[in-house]
Amino acid sequence: MVFQATTSAPVNIACIKYWGKRDTSLILPTNSSLSVTLDQDHLRSTTTSRADPSFTSDRLWLNGKEEIIKDGGRMSTCIKEMKRLRKELVEDKDPNAPKLSTFSVHIASYNNFPTAAGLASSASGFAALVSSLAALYTLPSNPSTLSLIARQGSGSACRSLFGGFVAWEQGTQSTGLDSFAVQVAPESHWPTMHALICVVNDAKKGTSSTSGMQRTVETSPLLQHRIKHVVPKRMEDISKAILDKDFDTFARITMADSNQFHAVALDTSPPIFYMNDVSRAIIAVVEEYNRVAVEKTGKVKAAYTFDAGPNAVIYTEQENVKEIIEMIVKFFPQPPDSFKDPFGLQIGSGKVPEGFNENVAKVWEVGSVKGLIHTKIGDGPRKLGEEETLLNAEGLPKSLA
Amino acid sequence: MVFQATTSAPVNIACIKYWGKRDTSLILPTNSSLSVTLDQDHLRSTTTSRADPSFTSDRLWLNGKEEIIKDGGRMSTCIKEMKRLRKELVEDKDPNAPKLSTFSVHIASYNNFPTAAGLASSASGFAALVSSLAALYTLPSNPSTLSLIARQGSGSACRSLFGGFVAWEQGTQSTGLDSFAVQVAPESHWPTMHALICVVNDAKKGTSSTSGMQRTVETSPLLQHRIKHVVPKRMEDISKAILDKDFDTFARITMADSNQFHAVALDTSPPIFYMNDVSRAIIAVVEEYNRVAVEKTGKVKAAYTFDAGPNAVIYTEQENVKEIIEMIVKFFPQPPDSFKDPFGLQIGSGKVPEGFNENVAKVWEVGSVKGLIHTKIGDGPRKLGEEETLLNAEGLPKSLA
Repeated sequence: MVFQATTSAPVNIACIKYWGKRDTSLILPTNSSLSVTLDQDHLRSTTTSRADPSFTSDRLWLNGKEEIIKDGGRMSTCIKEMKRLRKELVEDKDPNAPKLSTFSVHIASYNNFPTAAGLASSASGFAALVSSLAALYTLPSNPSTLSLIARQGSGSACRSLFGGFVAWEQGTQSTGLDSFAVQVAPESHWPTMHALICVVNDAKKGTSSTSGMQRTVETSPLLQHRIKHVVPKRMEDISKAILDKDFDTFARITMADSNQFHAVALDTSPPIFYMNDVSRAIIAVVEEYNRVAVEKTGKVKAAYTFDAGPNAVIYTEQENVKEIIEMIVKFFPQPPDSFKDPFGLQIGSGKVPEGFNENVAKVWEVGSVKGLIHTKIGDGPRKLGEEETLLNAEGLPKSLA
Repeated sequence: MVFQATTSAPVNIACIKYWGKRDTSLILPTNSSLSVTLDQDHLRSTTTSRADPSFTSDRLWLNGKEEIIKDGGRMSTCIKEMKRLRKELVEDKDPNAPKLSTFSVHIASYNNFPTAAGLASSASGFAALVSSLAALYTLPSNPSTLSLIARQGSGSACRSLFGGFVAWEQGTQSTGLDSFAVQVAPESHWPTMHALICVVNDAKKGTSSTSGMQRTVETSPLLQHRIKHVVPKRMEDISKAILDKDFDTFARITMADSNQFHAVALDTSPPIFYMNDVSRAIIAVVEEYNRVAVEKTGKVKAAYTFDAGPNAVIYTEQENVKEIIEMIVKFFPQPPDSFKDPFGLQIGSGKVPEGFNENVAKVWEVGSVKGLIHTKIGDGPRKLGEEETLLNAEGLPKSLA
């Protein structure tokens, strides 16, 4: 009998940013955060976990390449914690249950987006790892409980255990047991929430978020004010905006929080920069787009947000996506026929809406934005069929060629 | 008899940044600030003021081009205030004094640096305006008193009334009478304080500082924390560092405050960016230079600071200037023979100090940094001789050709 399970897990992009840990080994954050889960039809990590008494050690392959599981490292912690849950919740209660917690595991994981796209894969990756082990171990499927473990792999991974709009409650306990993800609203609540990812070319490798955020905690005089006096109200206000499907408020808070995250990064010593001139130009274009929209209707129509890198994610309602892509390709031209819209939108060579001041940005050279990904809000981890397994009969990763 | 006077006034570059007004018409700041006055041998505004009963209105020419003096505008306010001082302090006390306060004035002003250099000329310009009128009107020369008037022309102009290290005390009174400049230390206290200005090419016109700072006051959640809890201690600490000639502390505070100013600009809605990718690269190079210095001696050797634009000003001790210019031209090459050092330094084609990690920045194309200005700390406004007058016999600006 083969004990194995394959799951996929989504990427999430925060609207209220996580930046700073109060406990670096348990990965407990200095503030709560909130994200939108993106559709696995477009971006996902897929993971197969297999337990077998013949395996001599825990092993893991990422995109076909073996990663060393360091003792006491993040992957090791997640695997150990999942084995512990298997024992406590299944084996200790049912003497007939196979003792999978005593077997070593082989894990193969695959991201369907290139690492070079600059999209954080650790969130979807650790969410897929934890959910595949949960399926392998037939654990009661409470995503908040699993999020406690995914969090110890990569903080933001805890938010990828749910679809829709997801809050990571910072918690106050030193054990971290109250620092988990909860769903604010499922994807079905606001299915017209779409996202456009602008993949920005960047020569320079930025500061890793793990070391960057701790430098901010140690040196930024502004961070504590953000944590104590800004984020709590934003969490409350954006949660209400989501429940009310109030895009204008959702967008304003999302943009302000992206900018404030980059502001505290800049208030760090030495300062940390993730956005570059192309990122700044995308902000200028979206701000002008919103200025025109506010003039007409009083409400903004798009929200940019930037994580620890130069890529923009633009949230908008489905009805505005075509107009926004046209605008983006006007300033950031794409090679002919390079962009195929998965929703069937026909995009021309770019134009701006009426009343738009084109002087807010120059037309950049082809390749400045090196790719566009149009996606939408999506669901949480999915259990996949046996035919999707990433491991071959020997328990080694299948060739993906 | 011709009543006229010519003075020159210096540029100043803040170490603790002024950003935000509590009173926009009196130009009262939300926080105190502190600057270094740069040498007028290199950068200066020169102004001739003449009072004559034949003049029919106050007129002003900047670099040969007439500027309209708007009623209630900043130039008008400064001229009116200076006439009031003339009347109160001179004419009301001495019945024989000519009634210059009743005459119109012609004013010609000239900046010896190109506006295109992107250096703020309003500080030196208003300081020269006020000091030339003070000389014309034979006012008792108390720079702090004059700074009250220069402040109403352009906030940071008040700091150009002194040489050396200058604090602008924010004050608390609604009249603004306690919001003036004071000298922390004269230029003779620390004559080895040098400055290297890197003039950065920028396609895009940034947000004006006048409108930008008020947008920050209105929308940045972080600004109030900066004002109340960060700046007061920095003012105290940097003043002490100056008195102690403690370059390490001076530099660390200067860099942190530049970064924090740009952080609150970014925390504004819509966000304000003044630094571009070249500015960021200069920061990376100076930070690496300091990292190497700290490793060797425990102390930093250079301090970058950026005002409301992409240009860097690098403060350093005289002994390090050559090394720093060599390093800057390594990453930001200059056209052959374009840089002539006024202090006679012989600069090669660029090199970095031992132990310096060259991967912190790429080598930029020629023109990215379009000019270098090496200068040093300098004195306050200077009264110039009659031969320096900028007005001809008719009271019109002399041709400068």
